[in-house]
Amino acid sequence: MRLRKIRNASELLAAEPQLVINNPKERLGKWKDLFGNDHPLHLELGMGKGQFIIKMATLNPDINYIGIELFDSVIVQAMKKAKVAKLPNLLLVNADGNHLLSFFQAGEIEKIYLNFSDPWPKVRHAKRRLTNSGFLEIYRSILVPKGEVEFKTDNAHLFEYSIVCFNNQQYQFLDFSVNLHSRTEEIITTEYEDRFIEMNKPIYYIKAKVKA
Amino acid sequence: MRLRKIRNASELLAAEPQLVINNPKERLGKWKDLFGNDHPLHLELGMGKGQFIIKMATLNPDINYIGIELFDSVIVQAMKKAKVAKLPNLLLVNADGNHLLSFFQAGEIEKIYLNFSDPWPKVRHAKRRLTNSGFLEIYRSILVPKGEVEFKTDNAHLFEYSIVCFNNQQYQFLDFSVNLHSRTEEIITTEYEDRFIEMNKPIYYIKAKVKA
Repeated sequence: MRLRKIRNASELLAAEPQLVINNPKERLGKWKDLFGNDHPLHLELGMGKGQFIIKMATLNPDINYIGIELFDSVIVQAMKKAKVAKLPNLLLVNADGNHLLSFFQAGEIEKIYLNFSDPWPKVRHAKRRLTNSGFLEIYRSILVPKGEVEFKTDNAHLFEYSIVCFNNQQYQFLDFSVNLHSRTEEIITTEYEDRFIEMNKPIYYIKAKVKA
Repeated sequence: MRLRKIRNASELLAAEPQLVINNPKERLGKWKDLFGNDHPLHLELGMGKGQFIIKMATLNPDINYIGIELFDSVIVQAMKKAKVAKLPNLLLVNADGNHLLSFFQAGEIEKIYLNFSDPWPKVRHAKRRLTNSGFLEIYRSILVPKGEVEFKTDNAHLFEYSIVCFNNQQYQFLDFSVNLHSRTEEIITTEYEDRFIEMNKPIYYIKAKVKA
């Protein structure tokens, strides 16, 4: 994704404390209080500009969504769209995925979405890939017993690496595709994904659940 | 694969009893005697015209190979090539994969190759797919404790179906590709595969082992 630096990003985020949660560690185990209900909690990790999670939150008012994004210049763009959409079931967090365990307690999350995560192609950067074994263990510990992870990517190498990790980490595959958009059902897309569909490139996809 | 019917196929096969084993049930647990050594035993199920297994047997004299093929008009073509190659470590069997359990005893096989198996696209024919859960259970019972299955196909739908089956049947993924021939290493191909490479279509691949 092209990163256009926004100078006053952190100030813009701080100005929306109802939408962009600035102290996620203090919410550990208490996210339901913030939403004011006990609906299931779904995360998107690496939310980017927010198209996917905003559509999901609009379509599924009975599910609470939290979008996490590391880059402040990116999450600002999601924040601007979310402000317009005025969704009571959507919160944003500007943070690193490495800190998930300090934001969420065991069994607090029902589903995690990973959309077009950074492939980190160099082997020495494999530990940064959001589908590596370490992250899959973290997801397992914050997910409910049959919690799910959905992952899609255009990157063949990241997909190949990830599938082996999901399998080796004892995730049970529920759905799998080497060309997701050859399906007839409606698929909620990210901004990045739309460009790939235009280029007619395959999108790889897996849905897996934690074994009970 | 195009099937050209060969009229006297069964006679041609019967004329080569040293190469084409006509009573595989009687060999159960005793294949090593037939090869005259205790080298590992690898199977190709649905061997087709034999290019893959003949190359493998040529390259790996310390491994014994058995090629199984249902259609007599197809196995005849493999038989003709194998006669020329004169390989002491290759035997052929004209039989249905459904009978594997009566040919091989528990732990008799180290590796099974499934190359471009019939996709049987209709849902009601799923039980015929060589990667369905029933077959994966059969393979598990004739394989050694860490025995492997390698599967490649050009068919996206069969691959998608198969990956879920391998995962759900507790196979551990060792290697996985959505474009096998993008790799630089030498890959032993089938006749069918060569045509797909020319068309620049992706070959999907998985290597998985039975969990010990």
